[in-house]
Amino acid sequence: MSGIESLDILTEQFARLPGIGRKTAQRLAFSVLKYSPEEIEAFTSAIKDAKEKIHHCPTCQNLTDRELCPICADAGRDKSVICVVEDARAVMAFEKVRSFRGVYHVLHGLISPMSGITPDALCLRELLLRLEDATVREVIVATGATIEGEATAMYIARLLSPLGVKVTRLAHGIPYGGELEYADEITLSRALEGRRDFE
Amino acid sequence: MSGIESLDILTEQFARLPGIGRKTAQRLAFSVLKYSPEEIEAFTSAIKDAKEKIHHCPTCQNLTDRELCPICADAGRDKSVICVVEDARAVMAFEKVRSFRGVYHVLHGLISPMSGITPDALCLRELLLRLEDATVREVIVATGATIEGEATAMYIARLLSPLGVKVTRLAHGIPYGGELEYADEITLSRALEGRRDFE
Repeated sequence: MSGIESLDILTEQFARLPGIGRKTAQRLAFSVLKYSPEEIEAFTSAIKDAKEKIHHCPTCQNLTDRELCPICADAGRDKSVICVVEDARAVMAFEKVRSFRGVYHVLHGLISPMSGITPDALCLRELLLRLEDATVREVIVATGATIEGEATAMYIARLLSPLGVKVTRLAHGIPYGGELEYADEITLSRALEGRRDFE
Repeated sequence: MSGIESLDILTEQFARLPGIGRKTAQRLAFSVLKYSPEEIEAFTSAIKDAKEKIHHCPTCQNLTDRELCPICADAGRDKSVICVVEDARAVMAFEKVRSFRGVYHVLHGLISPMSGITPDALCLRELLLRLEDATVREVIVATGATIEGEATAMYIARLLSPLGVKVTRLAHGIPYGGELEYADEITLSRALEGRRDFE
């Protein structure tokens, strides 16, 4: 508490953001006070604009500022393969690699009983709708290798099993550049389970 | 780059803040997108309000939303001792301790030739003005024990020496809880130099 009400309120606002502690929030609040009126305007408009312009793509639920997101709108993308991810950041990570030519489906969350996030909170209904006609051949469940990620993957695999669509998941194993002596037991045992023939 | 212009602009705005890298900025931008319209309003008003309401106290240059800051306005504070600090956060740190009953002077920066910050950029003129009448007995230079902090302290000591006011500085030494084996050489040699009799 600084004893200056409007500064405390601003600090509070920064402290609400994920991963920002009280000390950092205070540092950020102080640095904003040094902004020129034009910089203040640029910062606050950026916040409002992003919120106003960005919505979910009606098909894949990814974030977009257009009617359909550029990936769903791209005729060159293979609509028969859907990669299911936790959030828009995962889409960006995959797009950076440029090796995936299918489309995505963004869940906007992972099942987490600890945080009270049930399957209802995820964009799963929208995924089922996309599987209604028979254009989709394969659903790749690409959630992270965390407890929530695996629970969600398992749930989706069971949810889709009656539909006859092929459901796959990402390979787990030693990461590129990873030294065996630093790999944990679970990673090692998965790398072993998932071993492949030399081609 | 997300490919969504307004999201990139918002990420850019967060990345401008001190200590916020690109990855963190993107995380913050995404979390703001999840805000409700009311939360967006609360965040942007907090930024604008803080900037509009907070200014420098005309006496000590500390940040305040009143005409005079509460410390300068407090008749119970000893106006004859001025503690000179780098910024408003240092004032808060001292006020938390509650052992100092004098007043402050906030420089709003430290001399740093590397970053092009010369003495002109600090609120030193305002400090000299406060020393014009003879009410001030002592100036405690309480800048940090960094290169910039010490350079600034040295500069102020020389600047004030013709005025006949007593200029002191904070004690340097082993911090509370500090183990000798982890103290660096400079800290140790200062602790030795500044040794005191048992009382």
